[in-house]
Amino acid sequence: MLTFFLDKTNPLSLYEQLYLKIKESIEQGTLKKNEKLPSKRKLASHLKISLTTVESAYAQLLTEGYIKSKAKVGYFVTTDLDLLYKMNKKPQKAFEVKKEVEYEIDFRTNQIDATKFPYDKFAKIERDIVLDQLKNNINRGDIFGVYEFRQRIAEILFSYRGIRTLPEQIIVGSGSEHLILLLVLLLGRDKVYSVEEPSYVKNYQLYRAYGTTVKAIPLDEEGLDVSVLKFEGCDIVHTTPSHQFPKGIVTPVVRRIELLKWASENDDRYIIEDDYDSEFRFFGNPIPAMKGMDKFDKVIYMNSFSKSLAPSFRVSFMILPEKLINKYRNTLSFFSSSVPTTNQLILEKFISSGEYEKHLNRMKNNYKQKRDELISLLNNSSFSDKIRIYGEEAGLHFLVDIKTEKSEKYLVDKAKEKKVRVYSLSEYYINERLVTDTKTIVFGYSNLNLEQLKRGIKLLELAWKNI
Amino acid sequence: MLTFFLDKTNPLSLYEQLYLKIKESIEQGTLKKNEKLPSKRKLASHLKISLTTVESAYAQLLTEGYIKSKAKVGYFVTTDLDLLYKMNKKPQKAFEVKKEVEYEIDFRTNQIDATKFPYDKFAKIERDIVLDQLKNNINRGDIFGVYEFRQRIAEILFSYRGIRTLPEQIIVGSGSEHLILLLVLLLGRDKVYSVEEPSYVKNYQLYRAYGTTVKAIPLDEEGLDVSVLKFEGCDIVHTTPSHQFPKGIVTPVVRRIELLKWASENDDRYIIEDDYDSEFRFFGNPIPAMKGMDKFDKVIYMNSFSKSLAPSFRVSFMILPEKLINKYRNTLSFFSSSVPTTNQLILEKFISSGEYEKHLNRMKNNYKQKRDELISLLNNSSFSDKIRIYGEEAGLHFLVDIKTEKSEKYLVDKAKEKKVRVYSLSEYYINERLVTDTKTIVFGYSNLNLEQLKRGIKLLELAWKNI
Repeated sequence: MLTFFLDKTNPLSLYEQLYLKIKESIEQGTLKKNEKLPSKRKLASHLKISLTTVESAYAQLLTEGYIKSKAKVGYFVTTDLDLLYKMNKKPQKAFEVKKEVEYEIDFRTNQIDATKFPYDKFAKIERDIVLDQLKNNINRGDIFGVYEFRQRIAEILFSYRGIRTLPEQIIVGSGSEHLILLLVLLLGRDKVYSVEEPSYVKNYQLYRAYGTTVKAIPLDEEGLDVSVLKFEGCDIVHTTPSHQFPKGIVTPVVRRIELLKWASENDDRYIIEDDYDSEFRFFGNPIPAMKGMDKFDKVIYMNSFSKSLAPSFRVSFMILPEKLINKYRNTLSFFSSSVPTTNQLILEKFISSGEYEKHLNRMKNNYKQKRDELISLLNNSSFSDKIRIYGEEAGLHFLVDIKTEKSEKYLVDKAKEKKVRVYSLSEYYINERLVTDTKTIVFGYSNLNLEQLKRGIKLLELAWKNI
Repeated sequence: MLTFFLDKTNPLSLYEQLYLKIKESIEQGTLKKNEKLPSKRKLASHLKISLTTVESAYAQLLTEGYIKSKAKVGYFVTTDLDLLYKMNKKPQKAFEVKKEVEYEIDFRTNQIDATKFPYDKFAKIERDIVLDQLKNNINRGDIFGVYEFRQRIAEILFSYRGIRTLPEQIIVGSGSEHLILLLVLLLGRDKVYSVEEPSYVKNYQLYRAYGTTVKAIPLDEEGLDVSVLKFEGCDIVHTTPSHQFPKGIVTPVVRRIELLKWASENDDRYIIEDDYDSEFRFFGNPIPAMKGMDKFDKVIYMNSFSKSLAPSFRVSFMILPEKLINKYRNTLSFFSSSVPTTNQLILEKFISSGEYEKHLNRMKNNYKQKRDELISLLNNSSFSDKIRIYGEEAGLHFLVDIKTEKSEKYLVDKAKEKKVRVYSLSEYYINERLVTDTKTIVFGYSNLNLEQLKRGIKLLELAWKNI
């Protein structure tokens, strides 16, 4: 008869110990297929344990399928556990982590100033929401996003961007990854999509990953040329008309109207207006959004809180034309909103309490100060006679053309030797052959303080002494 | 000369007023294409405003492209703004909201008990994280998810599910929508995917929306039959072996080994183990995860915090086999983690502080009490002689077969008349022809209190008096 040592001092209960011992015997082949197990009563008396203990162990083995019961005959092992199961699992290796260069100064464009976020106020609002509102919302999952939050977004869009929209047309999602996915599902994988060249390469990668045909459309000095869109047979164009990324072009009104007309000529055509950093314009009025002049309802407006709050918040949103809202309801309403409900309620309160507006105003001053400092540092640098700065009126980056025979790669590599990360314009191109001869560096400054900006330019003076 | 009334008491600055007036004149056709604007100096003196005011207004119009400047000649209107622009925007209609039935009692399966969540403790942890850690993490966006959080997940998986995994193999994502998307991109849209029939219909819809071929595989009493997978030419199978949704089947060990063998026979084959409610088993030990016996590294394990915390948290995760981790790094690392960084840091602390485990234990007791109450109510109901309850050992739902000549639809409709929402098993089928003759209702009870359970059954007695 089965004899196991069961240990009363073991933190596992006797029934668990018995269950594990029998399971082990089956797995190791001590107990073979069709072998009969002792009756519960006999085993209990043999091991001097209660009948209930044996019953529980047998029940668990039955549930997991190690044994089966034949009425009035008893319990039997179901099977020999074959090679696969007996094989030793190969030992796991730790994953190699590639050693990355550690930069001292990184002029990246996709960060915010982490030191200026109103953590106290945010913590207070979070706490209030969790204690007051979460109970009534913890099971909630609005398809389009939390309605009150979408109301606040509609208000912001009207007052900051001159866009009139209903909350019902707004969809909240966790980043461009999610919104672009929804758009591809909504508009169809069979359409021809296009992005600007140069642009944020990730968007191109997303459209491609989602299985669409996607073309990178070269820009002229006013932005997208409609005749190129026509020539390339594009249906959908993803564009940044108010501040082209990364080149900083503002698409003039005439060009905007051409684009809107182009879209209106065919049912399949849509313009995706990516208004990624419209919150920060340092000169004059904000550039109006194209969506504000969208008489034919052909513009899908997209923005996020990545620049105005933080990229790690993962909150983006888009406005769908009326026609697409109905299609979305009918075909994609099985998607839940991808942003946690609490986070949406917190942002709703952050906006309605006025903290959001205060924060934006503070950040605008803060970023303007950094921008001015960086421009002044560049203009007083040892290479100041070789540079032309442009695209500095808006957003959290600008461009610097550098007169040199050296390549952009040389400029980036030399900076890297001094542990400074700068970004060449060519890094934003899909088609290398479209890269122009001009040597251009894209400077982001949002998460560097004035000291770091100074240090960065000092190191670049050393790095670029032979250009 | 252009004459406008500029109002010093208007909250808009004089320059903004002037800019808007000129823009309006161009849009309305008062100023026509190629018309010359007065020089800045003349206009300033004419309107009795400062030169700077006119300069700012002209600069904004230049940026937006309404006017252009010809060197030493002056400023000209760029274009007639044509019909498109002049058209009146059609007035927006409010969206119709379909009036839904308001149920008094809803036996749904996808909610948690909102009254038992530790809001106080959670609020405290949130606050600490926002004040102490967010500053250093606000720009952070780990591709796979926050590393420390993935370490905690690996620990939970080991202690609760017997799975040994490295944090490096875990990917955090906002719900099954996102994880299934990543898997389709990783494994290929050209593969044949399969889900269980019946199952959670949304997963089927997701695989289909993402452009794959997806088959619904009927189950026998032990779960998936490998010969059917072979016959249907499936590459990937999405399965719930520890507690089939909704039928509650535990796939026995022999069947599990057959599945693992099937997967090992071809490089393209993978098993997606969806362990959606393994936290709640009310009888015996937890059923071990298949991933724990995955010697050939062919199981993709998937779970979420939707049942253990709340669905609105939008936090899911998966374990990728080693081979797929490398492929992910090489092909999909442009995806940022879709879950906000703060939320991951909060859950990390919720787990490491021991609160998660306490919460699980509390909820297990709470749900067991509700389950026992509902079973007792059913067994003492006026229709108790017509029912068979099963699948009640685990999870937050169970099934009730009802002996009646009436249809499932009749049962659901009659309940609806009494404002009780019950779910028929056929609602979980893709292919209607596979629905069996048995009349089965799936009861979820997690977000109903004992009073509501009582009321629900009372109403069902009225609804079903003629079955």
